[in-house]
Amino acid sequence: MRRLILVRHGQSVWNDENRFTGWTDVDLSANGIREAREAGQILLGKQFTFDIAFTSVLKRAIKTLWIILEEMDLMWIPVHRSWRLNERHYGALQGLNKVETAKKYGFEKVHIWRRGYKTKPPALSANEQLHMKKDARYANLLPSDIPSCESLYDTEQRVMPFWQDSVVRELSAGRCVLIAAHGSSLRALIKHLDEIPDEKIEDLNIPTGIPLIYELDERTNKPIKHYYLGDSAKIASAIKSVAEQLLPDASLKTKEKGHK
Amino acid sequence: MRRLILVRHGQSVWNDENRFTGWTDVDLSANGIREAREAGQILLGKQFTFDIAFTSVLKRAIKTLWIILEEMDLMWIPVHRSWRLNERHYGALQGLNKVETAKKYGFEKVHIWRRGYKTKPPALSANEQLHMKKDARYANLLPSDIPSCESLYDTEQRVMPFWQDSVVRELSAGRCVLIAAHGSSLRALIKHLDEIPDEKIEDLNIPTGIPLIYELDERTNKPIKHYYLGDSAKIASAIKSVAEQLLPDASLKTKEKGHK
Repeated sequence: MRRLILVRHGQSVWNDENRFTGWTDVDLSANGIREAREAGQILLGKQFTFDIAFTSVLKRAIKTLWIILEEMDLMWIPVHRSWRLNERHYGALQGLNKVETAKKYGFEKVHIWRRGYKTKPPALSANEQLHMKKDARYANLLPSDIPSCESLYDTEQRVMPFWQDSVVRELSAGRCVLIAAHGSSLRALIKHLDEIPDEKIEDLNIPTGIPLIYELDERTNKPIKHYYLGDSAKIASAIKSVAEQLLPDASLKTKEKGHK
Repeated sequence: MRRLILVRHGQSVWNDENRFTGWTDVDLSANGIREAREAGQILLGKQFTFDIAFTSVLKRAIKTLWIILEEMDLMWIPVHRSWRLNERHYGALQGLNKVETAKKYGFEKVHIWRRGYKTKPPALSANEQLHMKKDARYANLLPSDIPSCESLYDTEQRVMPFWQDSVVRELSAGRCVLIAAHGSSLRALIKHLDEIPDEKIEDLNIPTGIPLIYELDERTNKPIKHYYLGDSAKIASAIKSVAEQLLPDASLKTKEKGHK
């Protein structure tokens, strides 16, 4: 059976502070390190293994991967990093607290920025964009490939070439693949895998640090089934906490569902 | 200026116990983790940076690299692992304490096994070899490429194709390269770089966790100069301690020199 395992990085320092992160290179929190360790332990306990791993160029995903590989004694497998697996670029919202932003712009507006499929958040300023283009990790990109903000649709557009060119090749060669990435780059990928309609994708919430297993058809690489690995009550609560991140006031909650 | 940086992994648990390690996948000791962290800090302090890193498929080298990359905020650079950068395979000596082995076989014999250029140590048993061939990390190697023991010459023979094919290509593209590897795979590489004669290579001792900088000619990739990074008294003492590893009894010391 062909297997793909997706893991959203453990909690980052800014997840913990409820700030928009995007391409800002924020480290894991102590809680995120624990989540990554638990992800490795549960994968090991269930006797999973991988032949190759993919991750972004952001340290919260890379470190999550490193911790999982160390827990599973798989530090030797090949690892490929790509900016195409980066989190969605949150433009001018990066660094801002989600609740503060919602108070300023209205919860509805921020909800649409966060969950609307084709809605872009406000762009980075020209100055901030210049700063990002000087980052050595993006030096070999086409200037037109470096976003100043992204909708989930934009994220999907740059994730898919990497999926098609790099990941599908490994899966088709019979290799078991681990991807350690971000909430929105994984949502973009899952949208494609599960053929989720544009208007339904806002309901999808992926919890941090919980392995999501896809069993794929050996001919088409299309999903046969998928499931999270771990205690189901804990998974449900983790999905709920992602859905509620923006909305500490229960009366303002909108309907959001997990990816069961 | 073209730069290559070599780092021998920090102290491993078996270095600490003075045991022959070879291809056994032993972790860093607490001291080794500290050494790796210091290597990262000194490289950062001296404003070094890298475009790409190479390491072996053994965790003591991989973890040394990870710690250095984390200290330098370079976790995003590409990393390639290869069995060709593994430590010299120590055959049947792997796991044995160096002093005990010396008492059993004689210091002179063990010194020749350790330092003789073309001398092979006793080979693994057929059973142990079978076990190693089942290791997933060596599954794609030709059976003839999997050693049952190696002389330094043998190690050099399998390091050099990797140097020529992978590392030289990156250097020639103008990239600054970091290699985190092992005492003997680095000795083999340095023997080639510095054209050290066969009979002189036994005098070369590489301390753990101290960055060794090579400045290379841009046309030929031949060394212009090399130097260790750090406090010179500390480096001299680290080189001396590698040279003395086998020989706790001062009266039995043979003449061994560092790589100044």
